[in-house]
Amino acid sequence: MASLAAQGENTKSISAYGEARSTVQGRALDAEEVRKMNNYFRASLYLCLGMLYLRDNPLLREPLARAHLKQRLLGHWGSDAGQSFTWIHMNRLIKKYDLDVLFISGPGHGAPGILSQSYLEGAYSEVYPDKSEDTEGMQKFFKQFSFPGGIGSHATPETPGSIHEGGELGYSISHAFGTVFDHPNLITLTIVGDGEAETGPLATSWHSTKFLNPVTDGAVLPVLHLNGYKINNPTILARVSHEELTSLFNGYGWKPYFVEGSDLQSMHQAMAVTLEECVKEIRAVQQQARSSNKPFRPRWPMIVLRTPKGWTAPREIDGKLLEGFWRAHQIPITDVLTNPDHLKILESWMKGYKPEELFDANGTLIPELKELAPTGDARMSANPVGNGGVLRKPLNLNDFQKYALRDIVPGKTVKGGMANMAKFLREVVSENMTNFRLFGPDETESNKLAEVYKAGKKVWMADYFEEDNNGGNLSPQGRVMEILSEHTCEGWLEGYILSGRHGLINSYEPFVHVIDSMVNQHCKWIEKCLEVEWRAKVSSLNILITATFAFISPPDGNTLLSVMDHCLRSVNYVNVVVADKQEHIQFLSMEDAIEHATKGLGIWDWASNDQNEEPDIVMASCGDVSTHEALAATALLREYLPTLKVRFVNVVDLFRLISEIHHPHGMPDPHWKAIFTDNKPILFNFHSYPWLIHRLTYKRPGQHNLHVRGYKEKGNIDTPFELALRNGTDRYSLAIDAIDLIESLGNTGSSVREKFIKFQLQGKKAAYNDGVDPEYIRNWNWPYPKNA
Amino acid sequence: MASLAAQGENTKSISAYGEARSTVQGRALDAEEVRKMNNYFRASLYLCLGMLYLRDNPLLREPLARAHLKQRLLGHWGSDAGQSFTWIHMNRLIKKYDLDVLFISGPGHGAPGILSQSYLEGAYSEVYPDKSEDTEGMQKFFKQFSFPGGIGSHATPETPGSIHEGGELGYSISHAFGTVFDHPNLITLTIVGDGEAETGPLATSWHSTKFLNPVTDGAVLPVLHLNGYKINNPTILARVSHEELTSLFNGYGWKPYFVEGSDLQSMHQAMAVTLEECVKEIRAVQQQARSSNKPFRPRWPMIVLRTPKGWTAPREIDGKLLEGFWRAHQIPITDVLTNPDHLKILESWMKGYKPEELFDANGTLIPELKELAPTGDARMSANPVGNGGVLRKPLNLNDFQKYALRDIVPGKTVKGGMANMAKFLREVVSENMTNFRLFGPDETESNKLAEVYKAGKKVWMADYFEEDNNGGNLSPQGRVMEILSEHTCEGWLEGYILSGRHGLINSYEPFVHVIDSMVNQHCKWIEKCLEVEWRAKVSSLNILITATFAFISPPDGNTLLSVMDHCLRSVNYVNVVVADKQEHIQFLSMEDAIEHATKGLGIWDWASNDQNEEPDIVMASCGDVSTHEALAATALLREYLPTLKVRFVNVVDLFRLISEIHHPHGMPDPHWKAIFTDNKPILFNFHSYPWLIHRLTYKRPGQHNLHVRGYKEKGNIDTPFELALRNGTDRYSLAIDAIDLIESLGNTGSSVREKFIKFQLQGKKAAYNDGVDPEYIRNWNWPYPKNA
Repeated sequence: MASLAAQGENTKSISAYGEARSTVQGRALDAEEVRKMNNYFRASLYLCLGMLYLRDNPLLREPLARAHLKQRLLGHWGSDAGQSFTWIHMNRLIKKYDLDVLFISGPGHGAPGILSQSYLEGAYSEVYPDKSEDTEGMQKFFKQFSFPGGIGSHATPETPGSIHEGGELGYSISHAFGTVFDHPNLITLTIVGDGEAETGPLATSWHSTKFLNPVTDGAVLPVLHLNGYKINNPTILARVSHEELTSLFNGYGWKPYFVEGSDLQSMHQAMAVTLEECVKEIRAVQQQARSSNKPFRPRWPMIVLRTPKGWTAPREIDGKLLEGFWRAHQIPITDVLTNPDHLKILESWMKGYKPEELFDANGTLIPELKELAPTGDARMSANPVGNGGVLRKPLNLNDFQKYALRDIVPGKTVKGGMANMAKFLREVVSENMTNFRLFGPDETESNKLAEVYKAGKKVWMADYFEEDNNGGNLSPQGRVMEILSEHTCEGWLEGYILSGRHGLINSYEPFVHVIDSMVNQHCKWIEKCLEVEWRAKVSSLNILITATFAFISPPDGNTLLSVMDHCLRSVNYVNVVVADKQEHIQFLSMEDAIEHATKGLGIWDWASNDQNEEPDIVMASCGDVSTHEALAATALLREYLPTLKVRFVNVVDLFRLISEIHHPHGMPDPHWKAIFTDNKPILFNFHSYPWLIHRLTYKRPGQHNLHVRGYKEKGNIDTPFELALRNGTDRYSLAIDAIDLIESLGNTGSSVREKFIKFQLQGKKAAYNDGVDPEYIRNWNWPYPKNA
Repeated sequence: MASLAAQGENTKSISAYGEARSTVQGRALDAEEVRKMNNYFRASLYLCLGMLYLRDNPLLREPLARAHLKQRLLGHWGSDAGQSFTWIHMNRLIKKYDLDVLFISGPGHGAPGILSQSYLEGAYSEVYPDKSEDTEGMQKFFKQFSFPGGIGSHATPETPGSIHEGGELGYSISHAFGTVFDHPNLITLTIVGDGEAETGPLATSWHSTKFLNPVTDGAVLPVLHLNGYKINNPTILARVSHEELTSLFNGYGWKPYFVEGSDLQSMHQAMAVTLEECVKEIRAVQQQARSSNKPFRPRWPMIVLRTPKGWTAPREIDGKLLEGFWRAHQIPITDVLTNPDHLKILESWMKGYKPEELFDANGTLIPELKELAPTGDARMSANPVGNGGVLRKPLNLNDFQKYALRDIVPGKTVKGGMANMAKFLREVVSENMTNFRLFGPDETESNKLAEVYKAGKKVWMADYFEEDNNGGNLSPQGRVMEILSEHTCEGWLEGYILSGRHGLINSYEPFVHVIDSMVNQHCKWIEKCLEVEWRAKVSSLNILITATFAFISPPDGNTLLSVMDHCLRSVNYVNVVVADKQEHIQFLSMEDAIEHATKGLGIWDWASNDQNEEPDIVMASCGDVSTHEALAATALLREYLPTLKVRFVNVVDLFRLISEIHHPHGMPDPHWKAIFTDNKPILFNFHSYPWLIHRLTYKRPGQHNLHVRGYKEKGNIDTPFELALRNGTDRYSLAIDAIDLIESLGNTGSSVREKFIKFQLQGKKAAYNDGVDPEYIRNWNWPYPKNA
């Protein structure tokens, strides 16, 4: 590509091959240390290949045969060497400086690199005793990897020390920052793959330094691993000049130290001296900030590690490039089951690491290598932060009832539930100043939660202007974390929770879908954790969304308080709470709200008149505005058809609608029937897609009687009133629908009267232009007169 | 914040206030030009405020009264001035250099800034004649903005010249690059908000320069608008030093030119000379690359424009900061309806722009200002690229049937449908070398589509290494676009389609959810475009996913070909095609496949034996592997219960299951009944969530007879066989279920025989460990003997 030479880039200069080249010069190791560390590295690499290929003959004491291989080869070799290499070098510094270090593997599919470390350190055998530190244990350790009934090929929850699976790429740096906030002694060493570095979420997460306070937070030490290739392509960052790379990271606020090459001896020296320099710089920054108690934003150190992809593999096989090319990404030699020559190549490659020099006759790592790793909790594979639930302390929560909205006349009182709840949240912040944070993409103020700033302002470590004193609410010591990237907010929160703390993210419904898939990954993580015995439960991920509907939709202010209290106490869930931020009619006293929120759904007696009898119709709702509409329709039915028996059901937690077999919040069919009946029409008002309710209930008895009114379409600019008319959820439409349903089942004696009423209502609807359902509800004579 | 001064940053130096400071020095305008441009700018700003506030009295010829105001104030002021300012300065250069320029507004909620331009240029009145260039038209133009029945507050599809709404932030740069690929003369001027710049998708999209060939592509000219504040927070990039900002953009591969300040006279000079420098640099790069035909990657020019948020608004109102603070983000003075003093402030602010000097007695822009803008298609508000459908030419598609898989024995032949379809795709590329591209996050090779590289390699404008000659498939002239950021791929593709071309994105199912919300935004855009009369339809967004299920799931290779051909010809859809990439049993000849794909679903006669009779059961499937399983179960029923009448239905397009009322692909109930019956059991095998099928069919007659078998859970490592067993979709489970269903309806005479068979099958199932459904299917004696 001669034409590209015009840009003046000497591409040779950034080859991954040859003697080490590094920003920091000098030597930190003597020859004996290099020898031992390299042997430890060989042991790691041997284990990596063992995991990828072997189900038997773990130490190759017999000639390698097809029968020793797994029949289905799955897993990744490409980044294993670079990750192991980095881990081993950090081990030296943990021992030397007594550091507290967590390891996050961005390229989590390079799991063999991590798993090999936890096995060599003994942490693996401690939690999985059958994977013992001997030949037999090693065989099991190898076989289970990417094997049916075994473990996956990422840094999954089964991996000791891991809080980051690395499946959906892009979140390593934001997770890492989440772990170090309010953990002043922690350094989170984070490998960022150069593939991952191309994702959007990762690209913006480098800016997290503008939110890290060196006095009270720990530090993230990123190692950008320029492995050079993705699955089938080169990576961008491995194909730009040193100058551009340096500029990019300076611009992000980091100080990159390069370590590049393939020669083992010199690479060990370069990495040792560079990593040590980074650790010293981090400690110097922290020392300066803490001794003066003056937080500042330094240019934090990071490492750019350029090594060949699949480092230490054969460079070529049959004239095709392997090491240093994309073919090294997954299983490096794929046809060993069918190609005896390639099986030979694999065998001699593995034997080249000389396992007989590294493991004793028993198959145990020899003592002079064993002692290179730290012990106990100092091991990165056993750091308690990597199993954050063990560090988790429940929040210090005062009684939320002191913030109760009082003197509620159901259906009459109007108050703002969200702004009131913010007072409770303010106290949650002030009572938990080192283990609770509020996150969001700049919606906290507009969501009416600004009250929390009285307890903790917004964290800001970038520059300050004079204007900030006039309504800025910024502080290096803040407790609210706001960056416009939802991905970064969510990543920080996940990291914060997974490392044993508590938090809440708040956003606006239309924007929260940006992180749908990210939240799904977190759900899968915590679900899988339940199957891993040694994992302690972490705090729930609480998502507070302003909108008028979702899975947990408190109908009023006291229910919102009770729900929030519950969410903040819960573990191992993802709670999505949705509430509108405006003032609304209130329905429940604190006592009733607690009962209602605890049940998750229930009959509202005060709005029903079917006591001790079968209703003619069940009116149901979920969400605040839809509850208003359904109540208004109920009042209308009451006004025009006073003898009709109406049951009013409100749903807070939609998961209650599912069978208890399919969701822990679910309820059995008899319970469902007692509330909804199995033979009466149910008119369910709901401000999202009707199919969602059908999806949750399609197996319920009488579900064919269930009729959902909800979102059909939305115009450019809709008032709630316009939206109700458009979607047929205004009170007249709902009441007419209710009459239709009752008639269709023939549940009332004479239908002549109903037909007449329906006709009357249709006329009213045509002239209906006040749109003031709230006023109509408030003016109705609640509670509903019983058996009128 | 004295403590922050320690980092050596003189924050004063990056204030947005004062005389202009700029990287490029000099003057490009004489005093008369400055005067006119500033008047044009005043006219723009006046219109912006008019849109936000007024429903009457558009030129303030009467004293401003409450009755002239909209009753509900919605819209954004914050970025309007900076966007208008940039637009006006580009107008000068369009005229001077005869440029072809499209404008993309990243902060699309600053729509007044854009709308004011299209109104001043006359483009608005051309497409909406009632919004004429006079007082009456201006009144309508103002009133409709953010008003019920009017237009939204973003750069929505109704906005002439817009292809980018800017609601969900982060995609302006990737959209912009999409528009300039293969449009060598186009410059897309792109405003990037400093809020948007914090998002992940935007942060990585700066790297798009590594994929732009200056010989055959146009150029993107970004203007990073350091407006300073988001909704309630400062922005990161406005609070770091010049040094960091310069480094960051140098690192991304750009050359930033700063233009900063608030003084109008000097800012006009600075912007004029800077924008002109950028345009000249772009032309110089293009000239060099094109005259030598040697593509290279320069450091492309960009502008960093720092102006106060809400520029030209009052600095303070009642002691609270407005201009240059976050309060200027939306409606700048919110209480004008209730606060007469503030109404006065608004009036004098608006009158300060002196509309009487800018618009004549008729309310029309005066000629000396009108002539500042370009005319006809040269106007950014009328650039045909902004209504890409008018430029769209159908693809040159040869007959896909020449790639038919031939000699298909249904249920016997095994071939790879995806690898075969790649040959068709190769020809699509080679026959459409300037208006079709294939996009993806590095899955093209593993998706078995590498055949396309023969027609067009992967675009690569970063550095090349020697290894690339050995399997790299990279070229500056490539046609395949691969970056690991799904957001960037999708953004490029959207921009490419919306500017009148064709494309296809391919990915792997688990990763595609990262862009779920982004695709939803595109759906909303094209849906809304249907309501805008002057918008021409654009090509469909085609998404090809490897997995074993989705909405369009061709069951075999010939159906896949036919479906792809259809998608590539279609307009205004989002087509999601899902297929497995492995070799599979084939079922349909090309002729049958075309018919089947056209119908979207159908009875497979050759696998059914209910001809001219009612079936005892309907076996249905969607997707390749699930079709195998359902056919294997059908064969099993045939083997054990030869007199049973089985109808086999295969679904290609799931939207066929919906009523035609709710989806254009839907079908009416009688048609549904003719295929599925309304009284026979239907056993639907499906490799995704069962509720999805129920959601699509819950209103169908006989839907309570529909029983879906599908995804329940997945372990770490599953073969298709293990997955089938786990989820009960193996042939024995399905056949046993079928018998149960038939019995439950009492549709067969004697159930003793069925009970016995069921017992037999359960025994077989317990011993079932071959897992080779494909072999079982192939060994069955198809076609199904009729009425045996």
